[in-house]
Amino acid sequence: MSRFLSSQLANLEPYVPGEQPQERKYIKLNTNEYPYPPSPKVRDILDTKEIDDLRLYPDPQTRGLVTAMSEYYGLREEQILLGNGSDEILAFFFMAFCDQKRKIGFPDISYGFYPVYASLFGIDALKIPLREDFSINAEDYFNLDRNIVIANPNAPTGLYLELEDIERIAQTNPDHVVLIDEAYIDFGGASALTLLPKYENLLVCGTFSKSRALAGARIGFAFGSPDLIEDLNKIKFSFNPYNINRLSLLAGVASIEDNHYFESHLAKIIETREETSRALRELDFYVTDSKTNFLFAKHEKMAGEDLYLKLKDQGILVRHFNQERISDYLRITIGTPEEMDEFLETMTAIIRGDLT
Amino acid sequence: MSRFLSSQLANLEPYVPGEQPQERKYIKLNTNEYPYPPSPKVRDILDTKEIDDLRLYPDPQTRGLVTAMSEYYGLREEQILLGNGSDEILAFFFMAFCDQKRKIGFPDISYGFYPVYASLFGIDALKIPLREDFSINAEDYFNLDRNIVIANPNAPTGLYLELEDIERIAQTNPDHVVLIDEAYIDFGGASALTLLPKYENLLVCGTFSKSRALAGARIGFAFGSPDLIEDLNKIKFSFNPYNINRLSLLAGVASIEDNHYFESHLAKIIETREETSRALRELDFYVTDSKTNFLFAKHEKMAGEDLYLKLKDQGILVRHFNQERISDYLRITIGTPEEMDEFLETMTAIIRGDLT
Repeated sequence: MSRFLSSQLANLEPYVPGEQPQERKYIKLNTNEYPYPPSPKVRDILDTKEIDDLRLYPDPQTRGLVTAMSEYYGLREEQILLGNGSDEILAFFFMAFCDQKRKIGFPDISYGFYPVYASLFGIDALKIPLREDFSINAEDYFNLDRNIVIANPNAPTGLYLELEDIERIAQTNPDHVVLIDEAYIDFGGASALTLLPKYENLLVCGTFSKSRALAGARIGFAFGSPDLIEDLNKIKFSFNPYNINRLSLLAGVASIEDNHYFESHLAKIIETREETSRALRELDFYVTDSKTNFLFAKHEKMAGEDLYLKLKDQGILVRHFNQERISDYLRITIGTPEEMDEFLETMTAIIRGDLT
Repeated sequence: MSRFLSSQLANLEPYVPGEQPQERKYIKLNTNEYPYPPSPKVRDILDTKEIDDLRLYPDPQTRGLVTAMSEYYGLREEQILLGNGSDEILAFFFMAFCDQKRKIGFPDISYGFYPVYASLFGIDALKIPLREDFSINAEDYFNLDRNIVIANPNAPTGLYLELEDIERIAQTNPDHVVLIDEAYIDFGGASALTLLPKYENLLVCGTFSKSRALAGARIGFAFGSPDLIEDLNKIKFSFNPYNINRLSLLAGVASIEDNHYFESHLAKIIETREETSRALRELDFYVTDSKTNFLFAKHEKMAGEDLYLKLKDQGILVRHFNQERISDYLRITIGTPEEMDEFLETMTAIIRGDLT
C-alpha cells in the first residue's frame, strides 16, 4: 500500500479469484468453467477481416450483440446492457443504485464479490443468513428497505430459489432494486426475466462465461426496464464506454446464433452433473441439489481442506472456501465425463486411504 | 432516469464518444484510430486453439502481456497494471487516490473524460486554463495540493509538454499522485516513464488503441512504483479481476513482439501527419504543432461546426467540440495517405466554395 491510497480503502479486501496455477497441468474443476469449447461458429466469425478491424473502436452501443440477444430473449433492445463480464454489471449496479441511504442486503453465503463491492463503494451491507440447509428463506427479504442482490441458483450452494419467491421479494420491496444474478440459470432454473414486465424494480443479470463457454471473452449482461437500463448506461458511459471489445462482441453473436450447440452441450453437462452427484453420494458425500454446472459436497468423515489438498496433489483442482459453515464443503465444477471419471477415481482412492 | 438512481448521480453527464455511425460508410477521421491493421502476428496468434480456450477465464494477473511489456519497457512486472482500455486505468486512478480530501486538478481543455470521472466519484476538480496558445503552463501545477492528471501530448490540442516540466510538477507535489496520460506518446514525445525511478508519486498511463492499432481490443496500462501499482491492483481485484479478455492479452503480446511493424507504421503516420499539416496551412488553416496521430486546426475564415458538417455531408467524419475556446477547431485523425488526399481535396473544395 502506498501512502497515497485513499484512507477510505485501507480496509478493503479484494475478491480472491479461483487459483489459476501456471506451473503444472491440472484438471481444472475450480472456477466453474465450461468443459467444451465454444460453438465452432465463434471460430468461423473471427476471421482475418475482423482481426484487421481491431484497429477500430468497438461500437459503444454494442449493437450487434444486443440485437441478437433481444431476439433470443424476447426483450426490447433498451432492456439490455452488456458488461465486461457480469462482474462489471454488478459493479455498475452498486454504483447506480446504492449509496449512504440506499443500502444493500444479500445472503451471508453467496458470491464472494457482493461484500467486496459493498466495501469498495462504502455501502452498508446486511448479510442475511441462509437456512441450516443452505436454502434462502424468501421471507427474510420481504420489506427489507434495502436494495437486494440474490444469486439464483446461489453459489457456491447450487440451490435454486423458485420464481414465486423471487416475485414476492420484488413485490414487497417496490422502492428498491432487486437484482437476480443468474450466472448459472441455464443449467436448470427458470429465469426471472419473465417477471420483468410486472416489476419495474427488478433487474436480472447473467453471463456468457458459464453456459456459453466464453469465460475468456468476458461478456456479462443485465436485463431490466428501459429506465433501469438507462441508469446503468449512465454509469457505463461515465466509466468505460467501450467496455466490450470487438472480438467478444462477435463471439457473443456467434454463440447466440448457434442454439443447437448451446442446448445439446448444456444437456450433456447436466447429465454429467447428475451422474457425478450420484457417484459422490455413493462415496458418502452429502451433495446439495445443484441446478448449476458445479456440485457442492461434503464428506461425512473427511475435512474439506484435507480433500482439497489431496486432490490438488493428484493434479485436480476444486474450490474450497475457508469460511464458516461451509469449510467442510468442496465446490466441484462439472468437467467432461472423462475428467469426472478421473476425479471420482482419485476421490475414491483418497477416501479409501489408498493415497496419503 | 429511474426513481432508483442514486441522487448523487442526478447531474452526472456521461462522456460522449466520437460518432460511430452505422448507416453509411465514412472516411473515419474522428476517433484517432490507427489507419493500418494491427501486426499480422496478431492474426497468427489468434488460432483455433486460442479461440477454443475462450471457455477458460483469462489470467487475472495478465501475466503473458505484463511479462512482454516488462521486457520491452525495461520495467519490473510489479510496475505494470493492465486495464480494459486506458479509460479503466483512469477510473481506477480516481477510485484509488481521490476522495473528499484528495482532490484533483487538470487542464481545462484536455481529454473530456477527466471531469466525468470527477463527477462520477464526487471528487472536487480544479480545471486549470491552458495558455492562449493552448500550451500548458507547468508552473500552474507547482505545489497544487491536489492529485493531477495531464495528457501528454494533450488532446485535442496535440501539444507536447517537455519532460523537465513534468518532472518539476512531480517534484513540487510530493504528497499527491501525478498521472501522465500518454495515449499519444509514441507519435513523437518522450515518455515520462524514465522519471519513474526518481518520483514515487508519478504514474504514467498509456494504451494499445492509438499507436498499436488495437482500439478494438481494449488494452490500457499504467506504469508506476510497485506501491502505486499495488494500490491500483487493489481496486482492480475489487472491481473486475478478469478485466482483460484472453484474445486481447494475446493480441497485445503479438503487437509488442512485432517491433518492426510498430516502428515502420508509426513512421508512415508521422510522415502523413506532417504532409497533411503543411497542406492545411496552405489552405489558410492555423494548425497546432501536433505530436500525436491527429491534427488540431482552425480555418482563418470558416467556422469549425460549418466545416465539420460539410465534411460529414461528403462522407468524411472529423471531430468537432462544441466547447468554449475550441469551437472553431477541428480534430482530424491522420488516416492513410489516400484518405488524407481525399480529405484535403474535399476540404479544398469546401473552402473554395465549390461545395455548398
